[in-house]
Amino acid sequence: MAFQIAVVGLGLMGGSMAMALRGFRDARIVGIDVNEASLEKALERGVIDEGLTAPAGPSDLWVLCLYPRDLAGFVEKNRAFFTAGTVVTDIAGVKGAVLEKIPPLLPADVDFVGGHPMAGLEVWGFDHAKKDLFQGCNYIVIPDDAARPESVELVRSMARHVGASRIVSCTAEEHDRNIAYTSQLMHVLAAALCDNPDFLQSKGFEGGSFRGATRVAILNDRLWPQLFLENRDALVLSLDRLLGSLLALREDVARGDEEALGKAMVLATDRMKKWQKRQV
Amino acid sequence: MAFQIAVVGLGLMGGSMAMALRGFRDARIVGIDVNEASLEKALERGVIDEGLTAPAGPSDLWVLCLYPRDLAGFVEKNRAFFTAGTVVTDIAGVKGAVLEKIPPLLPADVDFVGGHPMAGLEVWGFDHAKKDLFQGCNYIVIPDDAARPESVELVRSMARHVGASRIVSCTAEEHDRNIAYTSQLMHVLAAALCDNPDFLQSKGFEGGSFRGATRVAILNDRLWPQLFLENRDALVLSLDRLLGSLLALREDVARGDEEALGKAMVLATDRMKKWQKRQV
Repeated sequence: MAFQIAVVGLGLMGGSMAMALRGFRDARIVGIDVNEASLEKALERGVIDEGLTAPAGPSDLWVLCLYPRDLAGFVEKNRAFFTAGTVVTDIAGVKGAVLEKIPPLLPADVDFVGGHPMAGLEVWGFDHAKKDLFQGCNYIVIPDDAARPESVELVRSMARHVGASRIVSCTAEEHDRNIAYTSQLMHVLAAALCDNPDFLQSKGFEGGSFRGATRVAILNDRLWPQLFLENRDALVLSLDRLLGSLLALREDVARGDEEALGKAMVLATDRMKKWQKRQV
Repeated sequence: MAFQIAVVGLGLMGGSMAMALRGFRDARIVGIDVNEASLEKALERGVIDEGLTAPAGPSDLWVLCLYPRDLAGFVEKNRAFFTAGTVVTDIAGVKGAVLEKIPPLLPADVDFVGGHPMAGLEVWGFDHAKKDLFQGCNYIVIPDDAARPESVELVRSMARHVGASRIVSCTAEEHDRNIAYTSQLMHVLAAALCDNPDFLQSKGFEGGSFRGATRVAILNDRLWPQLFLENRDALVLSLDRLLGSLLALREDVARGDEEALGKAMVLATDRMKKWQKRQV
């Protein structure tokens, strides 16, 4: 029998995942979504081989592309379909809460291997899904302690298949601390940057730096608050560090301290050059 | 006699300007730089028609690509070469200080038309110069009050020739207030974002949002402090606004206020969508 993958949630991420998974282990791809319109479109375009509004049987690999808060409910409700040997992965941008809640809800002979592809777009929904969304991305893989090595390898090879150029393994805690900084902070920041009375009138004065820092200011208002709050302590720490650094630079500017500003520029430059050279 | 353009300062910006100016009014291009190695390279590659370490005669158009603080000294020293009808422009990222200082140093029959191409790279020096640096950029043009319309049109047509896709005219004050926000703030921010103990170890966890906000953290430590301090009040205002917005979001996160965060995401999204649609 063919290897079967169930992609649960055909939004931007799940839809793109289903598209990118085509050809992986010659799998039969089942799409599961409460939105029948998305299922129909995915079927029409050959993205999935079968579309269901709820699971109807087992699959070999489950890729859960739901909002973080919807994961536990889905797993509890469909526990019977996670048969022995099944591998379950997800794509949520927080991992501590997921690794804590999901594996205990699964049968003991089912492996959970968390995942987080570092890719996205400032749009959402199946209509924006695209096959190459994950091309060249960092893909973070966080297995549950009890997961078998072959299950971890299955998820890693899936990540490579969908296009990840670098697969990073770490603990859920390490993931969340880093992601609070590299991702969640940047999204809070983009929102803060737009909250300026000069925002609209500044059009025409922008260069690449402005576009770069504000690009992600179009934010899914259901998803991001969940991600922020599921990783609250780490995000507050990142915000406090940024606030401290910004305030120190603000004081240098207000004081007219050209030397201190020059030193800060040298420090930032050195750090960024080291970052660029760093091998992971 | 051929129209002659003097490009003063063959760094990243001046070198790129000289390259992009080729063909504009069939001009003869004279490069002026204290660095003889840059002059030789520019001559060898046909970027300039003549290279000089100091001006030796008049030109029809002067494009001053010097650090903001070096502009006045250059103009004072070479006043004799700015003959009647000459047009002088610059590319400095601050305009209030430039428009205040430079026109009074020029002979009355010489027009100053300030310019600011919103383009750059996180490298500097002639070796990084490239012909298409200004392709598609916003180019801000700020004439001195006394400049003749044909001098303003000369600089605008120059901006179009080097590749600007949008030419914005405004007052120096308007420029500096907007640029403090769209450019200088983003550079202070990039420096602040790197000033984090987790910076280096976060490699592998970054996505597009992190790359976008930190790309400009490689900062010319002589240029940027000058730009920041020549526009101090506007930059402090921009920093205070960002600090205020960030702190409010930090409180929402710390308090676990999902509703307030959702509202902030909706607000940011609405603003960014309006910004994208806005015609300038």
